[in-house]
Amino acid sequence: MTARTALMHIAGTASALPAEPVDNAALSDIFGISEGWIDLFVGTRTRHFGWDPATGKVTHTLADLCAEAAGRALAAAGLAAADLDFLVLSTATPDTLLPTTANETADRLGLNHLPTYQIQAGCSGAVQALDVARALLASGHHAGLVVAGDVTARFLQAGQDASALATQELINYVLFGDGAAAAVVTAEPHGDAVAVRGLLHRFAGRGRPPGQIVGWRGVTEPEPDRQMLFEDYKTIEEEVPALAGEIVWELLSTADWTPQQVDFILPPQLSGLMTERIVAGLGLPPGCREVSCVRDTGNTGNALPLLQLDRALDSMAPGERALSVVVESSKWIKAGLALERLAGPEEGGRGR
Amino acid sequence: MTARTALMHIAGTASALPAEPVDNAALSDIFGISEGWIDLFVGTRTRHFGWDPATGKVTHTLADLCAEAAGRALAAAGLAAADLDFLVLSTATPDTLLPTTANETADRLGLNHLPTYQIQAGCSGAVQALDVARALLASGHHAGLVVAGDVTARFLQAGQDASALATQELINYVLFGDGAAAAVVTAEPHGDAVAVRGLLHRFAGRGRPPGQIVGWRGVTEPEPDRQMLFEDYKTIEEEVPALAGEIVWELLSTADWTPQQVDFILPPQLSGLMTERIVAGLGLPPGCREVSCVRDTGNTGNALPLLQLDRALDSMAPGERALSVVVESSKWIKAGLALERLAGPEEGGRGR
Repeated sequence: MTARTALMHIAGTASALPAEPVDNAALSDIFGISEGWIDLFVGTRTRHFGWDPATGKVTHTLADLCAEAAGRALAAAGLAAADLDFLVLSTATPDTLLPTTANETADRLGLNHLPTYQIQAGCSGAVQALDVARALLASGHHAGLVVAGDVTARFLQAGQDASALATQELINYVLFGDGAAAAVVTAEPHGDAVAVRGLLHRFAGRGRPPGQIVGWRGVTEPEPDRQMLFEDYKTIEEEVPALAGEIVWELLSTADWTPQQVDFILPPQLSGLMTERIVAGLGLPPGCREVSCVRDTGNTGNALPLLQLDRALDSMAPGERALSVVVESSKWIKAGLALERLAGPEEGGRGR
Repeated sequence: MTARTALMHIAGTASALPAEPVDNAALSDIFGISEGWIDLFVGTRTRHFGWDPATGKVTHTLADLCAEAAGRALAAAGLAAADLDFLVLSTATPDTLLPTTANETADRLGLNHLPTYQIQAGCSGAVQALDVARALLASGHHAGLVVAGDVTARFLQAGQDASALATQELINYVLFGDGAAAAVVTAEPHGDAVAVRGLLHRFAGRGRPPGQIVGWRGVTEPEPDRQMLFEDYKTIEEEVPALAGEIVWELLSTADWTPQQVDFILPPQLSGLMTERIVAGLGLPPGCREVSCVRDTGNTGNALPLLQLDRALDSMAPGERALSVVVESSKWIKAGLALERLAGPEEGGRGR
C-alpha cells in the first residue's frame, strides 16, 4: 500500500454530540453570564450538553455518546463488531467508577470475549488511547476501537445564576461541552485509511503544579475542604502555546517531514480565542489549513482530538498530511499525531 | 536465558499497606459490627486503612501508597527510575479525576518525559495494567513500572454505627482494605526474574447485569437518586468460582501446562471464606500451594493480585510455576497470569 512505515492505520471515525447546540445567548439567559464577555474573552459560539441546562435532567450519559460514536465509526470503516480485537476508551468523567464506561460501551455494541481498557485522562486521552491501541496492534492484534468522550453534568449546576461566581468557576460554564468520538484502528490499511506516521505521548509534569484539578466525591466526605474544581487559566494560557510548538517540532522530526509538507493543523482547543493565538504562534506556512471545532462544540475534553480528526477526514485528499497537537494541562502531557491520508484500496484509487 | 517464550518478565515487586492492621475486634468496637459475624461469614481477620476509622482523617492517599510501593519495587528489581520507559497505574479509586494518580506517582518518583497510563478498573486492574505493559514491551520498550491500588476513604463512614445498615452496605465495612503494590516489568529477563508465560484479559459481560456498582459525585447532583454503591454478593458468590475454574483452564492451555505442573495458585480474594471455597472447587492437585493475603489485608481491589505475587516471590524456587486468577465482577472480566520463576542471571544461578 505504501513504502513508508506506519504505526497503525485509522480506518474510520465518527462523532456524537448530544442535543441541539446551546449558543451564547441561551447560555446568557440560563446562567446570567454576559454574552459579550463570552464572545470577547472565550470566543466559543456554541456547545452541546448531555443534560438540560435549565433543569439539569440528564439526557445523554457518556456511554450513550460513546456507543453512538463507536457504532458510526464502525460503519464508516466498513467493519463489524466481530472484526474488533479490543476496545480502548478514554475519559476524565466516566459514568461510574465501576463498571467502567468502556465495558458498558462494549456491552451496547454487542462485544464480548475481547480485552477492554479504560484510560483515565484529560485532554490528551484520545492520543493516549491511540497509543495503547498502537501497542496492542504491534503485539499482534489486527483491529480495534478507540473511543473518547466527556460529559459535564456533574460539574455545572443547571439553572444557577453563575454571574456571582469567581471567574475561575464561571469559566467552566463557557469553556466546556459534552461529546464523544471514535476511531477504528487497524494494523494494515483498510479502505480510505489514514496512516499514523508519528505518535507523541509524553508526561512532562515533573515538579510542576497542576494546571487543572477535577475532584470527585464518594458517599462520605473524609476531606470536606478538598478542592473539587480548579483551573489555573493564566498558567494554561502561558504554557500551552509553547508546548504546542514543541509538539509540532517533535512530530515533524519523528515523521521526517518539513513544515511545508503539512497540509492540515489540528491545534489544541481550549477555547476559540486561545486556538487562534496558538495557531498564530506555531509558525506553520500560510497554506497549512486549520481544523478546529471548539467554536461550535466547546472544549469536549477527551473527545476533541477525534472530533477534529473526524472533520479533517472530510477534507484530506490522498497524500495530504496533518498534525494533531494536544496538551494536557492538569499535569502536563505533550501529545500528538502525524497523519497521512492514503490513496485507498486500489493503487491511485478512490480518494474520499 | 530460557528456551520458552515469555510475554514479558517481572524483575521485582513490592507492596505498601497503610498504618497498623485493624482487627475484627477493633472493627466491631468502631462500627458496631458483630465480631462473630465477620469471623463466620467473611473470614477476613485484619485489613489496613489509609484513614483513621475512628475519626475519618486521611493518613495515606492512593498516590502515597503507589509511590511507596513503586519505589520499593524498583529497589527490589535493582533498577533506577531512569531505566523506566513507561508507567501504568490501575485503580478504581483515583485521588482525583484530574490530575491522574499515575502522573502524581510519576512526579513523586522523579519520572519525566515518558508515557504514563492510568487504567480505570476493578479487581482485574493489575492484570489489565500488565496487559498494557506487555503490549508496550512488545512494541519496543525495554522496562516499565506497573502499579495498582485502591483506597476506601470516600466510601466508608468513620465512626458510624454500621449495625443498622442493610447487609449489602455493611459488607463494604468488613470486606475491603486499602493498599497498593507494584511490579517492575522488562522485555528481557533481569535478575531473579519471573517469566510471564500466559496472560488472560477478556471482557465477558455482554448482556449481564453488573455485580457491583461504584458511583461518584461531582459538585452538582443532576441525578439525586443515582445508586452510589451496590454489591450483588449472592451473584458474585455464585459466579466467581465457575469463572475462576474457566480462567485456570484457559491459562493452562495458553502456557501448555498440566495441572500437575502448577506449584502455586493465587486465587481470587473477595474474602477469606470465599477464597477457601473457590480454591476447593478448582480441582488442582493437593501439592499446589495457595498464596492468599485477603485474611490479613482485606480485599484491596486493584492491589490484590500484585500483593499475592509479591508474597509468592518469597517462596517460588527457580523453575516453579504459579497461576494468578482474577475475576472482575462489576461487569465480568476474566483475567489471570501464568508465571514461571527463572534460574537467575547466571546459568543455574542464584535462586531467591
